[in-house]
Amino acid sequence: MKVIIVGGVAGGASCAARLRRLDEKAEILLVERGPYVSYANCGLPYHVSGVIEKESSLLVSTEQTFRTMFAIDCRTRCEVVGISSKKKTVELKNHVTGEVTTEKYDKLVLSPGAAPIRPPLPGIDLPGIFSVRTVPDAREIREWIERGGSDLTEEQHTSSGLPLDKTKRAVVVGGGYIGLEMAENLVHRGLEVTLVEMLDQVMLPLDPECARLVERHLEKHGVRLALNDAVAGFKQTASGSLEVLTKSGKAHPADIVILAIGVRPETELAKMAGIEIGQLGGIRVDEQMHTSNPDIFAVGDAVEVKDFVTGEWSLIPLAGPANRQGRIAADVIAGRDSRFRGTQGTSVIGVFGGTVATTGANEKLLNRLGQKDFEKVYLFPNSHAGYYPGAKTIVLKVIFRKSDGRLLGAQALGQDGVEKRIDALAMAIQMGATVYDLEEAELCYAPPFGSAKDPVNFAGMVPADVLRGDMPLCHWTSLGGGFLLDVRNPPELAVESVPGAVNIPLPELRGRLKELPKDREILIICRSAQRAYYATRILLQNGFKARNISGGMLSRSMRSLSEVK
Amino acid sequence: MKVIIVGGVAGGASCAARLRRLDEKAEILLVERGPYVSYANCGLPYHVSGVIEKESSLLVSTEQTFRTMFAIDCRTRCEVVGISSKKKTVELKNHVTGEVTTEKYDKLVLSPGAAPIRPPLPGIDLPGIFSVRTVPDAREIREWIERGGSDLTEEQHTSSGLPLDKTKRAVVVGGGYIGLEMAENLVHRGLEVTLVEMLDQVMLPLDPECARLVERHLEKHGVRLALNDAVAGFKQTASGSLEVLTKSGKAHPADIVILAIGVRPETELAKMAGIEIGQLGGIRVDEQMHTSNPDIFAVGDAVEVKDFVTGEWSLIPLAGPANRQGRIAADVIAGRDSRFRGTQGTSVIGVFGGTVATTGANEKLLNRLGQKDFEKVYLFPNSHAGYYPGAKTIVLKVIFRKSDGRLLGAQALGQDGVEKRIDALAMAIQMGATVYDLEEAELCYAPPFGSAKDPVNFAGMVPADVLRGDMPLCHWTSLGGGFLLDVRNPPELAVESVPGAVNIPLPELRGRLKELPKDREILIICRSAQRAYYATRILLQNGFKARNISGGMLSRSMRSLSEVK
Repeated sequence: MKVIIVGGVAGGASCAARLRRLDEKAEILLVERGPYVSYANCGLPYHVSGVIEKESSLLVSTEQTFRTMFAIDCRTRCEVVGISSKKKTVELKNHVTGEVTTEKYDKLVLSPGAAPIRPPLPGIDLPGIFSVRTVPDAREIREWIERGGSDLTEEQHTSSGLPLDKTKRAVVVGGGYIGLEMAENLVHRGLEVTLVEMLDQVMLPLDPECARLVERHLEKHGVRLALNDAVAGFKQTASGSLEVLTKSGKAHPADIVILAIGVRPETELAKMAGIEIGQLGGIRVDEQMHTSNPDIFAVGDAVEVKDFVTGEWSLIPLAGPANRQGRIAADVIAGRDSRFRGTQGTSVIGVFGGTVATTGANEKLLNRLGQKDFEKVYLFPNSHAGYYPGAKTIVLKVIFRKSDGRLLGAQALGQDGVEKRIDALAMAIQMGATVYDLEEAELCYAPPFGSAKDPVNFAGMVPADVLRGDMPLCHWTSLGGGFLLDVRNPPELAVESVPGAVNIPLPELRGRLKELPKDREILIICRSAQRAYYATRILLQNGFKARNISGGMLSRSMRSLSEVK
Repeated sequence: MKVIIVGGVAGGASCAARLRRLDEKAEILLVERGPYVSYANCGLPYHVSGVIEKESSLLVSTEQTFRTMFAIDCRTRCEVVGISSKKKTVELKNHVTGEVTTEKYDKLVLSPGAAPIRPPLPGIDLPGIFSVRTVPDAREIREWIERGGSDLTEEQHTSSGLPLDKTKRAVVVGGGYIGLEMAENLVHRGLEVTLVEMLDQVMLPLDPECARLVERHLEKHGVRLALNDAVAGFKQTASGSLEVLTKSGKAHPADIVILAIGVRPETELAKMAGIEIGQLGGIRVDEQMHTSNPDIFAVGDAVEVKDFVTGEWSLIPLAGPANRQGRIAADVIAGRDSRFRGTQGTSVIGVFGGTVATTGANEKLLNRLGQKDFEKVYLFPNSHAGYYPGAKTIVLKVIFRKSDGRLLGAQALGQDGVEKRIDALAMAIQMGATVYDLEEAELCYAPPFGSAKDPVNFAGMVPADVLRGDMPLCHWTSLGGGFLLDVRNPPELAVESVPGAVNIPLPELRGRLKELPKDREILIICRSAQRAYYATRILLQNGFKARNISGGMLSRSMRSLSEVK
């Protein structure tokens, strides 16, 4: 059996190595268009800043390793320029010799990845505008910065007398993971960074009120944000530097521009092979990574996969799923019955000391799908026991199904212990856990690490209180005409209060019930919604209609950030 | 309805607060023998060192809070001195006034906790020997150290001219969580610490080969270990300091002794009430926390609970389960159908910058129960992507059921990202996950946080390889008469090699198969068992009998530590 695998990074490399382990006799040809296989593309932004110092650190595996360790015919700088799915052949172009050869396959695996989007805007090809996909991309960015943001070589610079340190201003286009990581790493290198984003938020996997916190954090660390503004074009100024022009008419000066608008599945090969493309523009595959042609498989960023939570097709260009898909394609080729279970979109980013992580469905997505059977809560637990020094607040949004309590998604932000809670919740989602399961979760607790009631437990307890009817909920976005009751203590109100809210501190509440209306819904406020929960219980059991405003003043401040914008 | 709750820390306080939320009308009396309710006993060791500076930080909630926020009649320094389960009354002694009163109950909740074991050894009551259970205990330890390890007050010291800084040597008796935390915190305070442990290992929840790593770590940080040696008694020397005498005849000099031998459920109240005690000496309860008397509940460290994994009764004195049990007792009293699911024994400790965490069953326990249907693997993954600076090795032992792949337990040690992997695995165990589920887990990945194949994925992949027959396994402890093949590269062998092992580096293996015997089982060695896995695959598919030695040279070094002892 001869298997040709096209694309030698996450999905393709995993597939090749796994296939060799399963089938010592298979003839495996791994071709990669670029100069490297199995490199750490997730590390590229960190190499630009020098956090990852050596380029060689990014080369996880080499052509040589594939040959010697796995007996795989591995060819870099080798591109597929033609596929005949009838003849079961591919045409390979060797970019070093220029030679084109034809190779037969029994099974073909496509792992071409996704290409950074480069919209056909005026000036897009000007020098100094970069994408971040490959090791050479990162090298070019580093060199550009080190040369002082110009096309001149160091030698030319020296002879021209131009300064070498004039790369001072960067514009990053796109506020997704790569955009944010590039912004951080360019700030680390000492550049002034402006982030231009077409949409009204950074980090699409987050709901907007959570993204606001990220945006504030970026600004605090010196990143200028230009949201809600699309790039219209690029211009070279008289001095040789760039300007990024936006639809709103702004011109952002730049010595370097990073395009991180997003990626688009590479489907040229799929089209050559005549296989089906999905509605989102990715290669359509089944759970065994078969394309519409049974002898052709596809894996990684180029394919559409089912969203584990919603069951919808989605494009999730992440390394973890790509690796798993590569393994599954190899399994299936080797005659095993492995299946990809779909993706939860679990992801994390570290930016300026903050961590943002998410898993499962967000509210925007559920709304877009017209789903109604869900509720959300906002929680602000400590990263570890509050009495142990260094505890930090975690902002946690939890989304769950109302009808059965199934956990649907979670978003978390903070400085410490963020991704570990999302990991536990990701595992919970994978296993079909409900919020009632989270209530009973038994996680690591010692004062430096967590609390006897872990944030993950709270992510179950609070929704379960809602679902059991113990704590009717409302949100700042939908207060209706309720009677606002603030149960905080007066000193807290002095700092920030809610217009129109009546204050009865919780300890006085039982004695002052007569001051409250029985005919109106009482919406209860405190700092984090914990005391308001206690107050809700008191009122409900005394015949009042009461709701807790989820997340209290803390979630209100998230909302205020939105209003300010 | 009148509910009396005895014991005001984790289980009792949770029960009282939860019950109030569920039943605004119930009369709730919370009595606590000591001066404080709801204090952070897990923080006590850190207060001794001053890491938690203020004693007040440990007082999570107060008598006053219970009264004003929860309308709970909360009485500290109030002890139950009699229970009549027939009359449904308790006799309460007020330790301030000395008054004894009788109170009726409809439901009684016992949350007396577990008392530090103080064996009746000669000299056990000498001044300078302390347990660590309550805030006053921690205060006395601090004062003792600050006064210079004597009974004198500061004033007497000054007048006597004795130095105040002579508390230099501590002996901690017991190598469990509290013993280790105390050892660390006393070292932080500048004391020389000797840890005496009767058993041949510290940290009983770990299997011995994992405990060895903890022991080496303790020694590296200056803790003298005296394992396998029980305390025989205590002696006061002429200079007023102490000596800890052991069965082996040693005498460890000490200015202070901490007893952290373990805890024993407090069952005096249960005996007064005539309720059933289990075989392990804890109060017997059902999953709704009923004792054998339907009007009496018990929760927390005093009760025996079912081990979630093995189904056996166990004593798990941990704060998380105590809190959950308190909630469940309250639920049941309020007429709800909540059930405790058993405990997994998930726990974590931080010691001298290292983290040790565990969940589920360990090998010792399964062996003791005579179980045969399990296998183990040793893994040594990076805490995050190896190409991103600062990655540290995590030592991970994973135990799983052979017949169905069910995850049974895990132990992890390292410096970073340790407890987050155990949290994910704890959630997996709770949800009944198999190693096949772990293979497909989708966890947070970005270079600073993890790897595209997370350690949790490896904790699934490697066992799954074993169960699918792709990688027959063996262990250093059971090599039998196999042919030892080392597939590392010569420079690695120069550092450490295995006597009798034949070396064929992996890249040469396919070309040198003729050098290997077909009639013997070939046991394959590399550094971490990854290349040995590749070699196993090559050999199996070429008609050899082959096994991978789990964990390779890295697990061998764990075993060597055991042999050295």
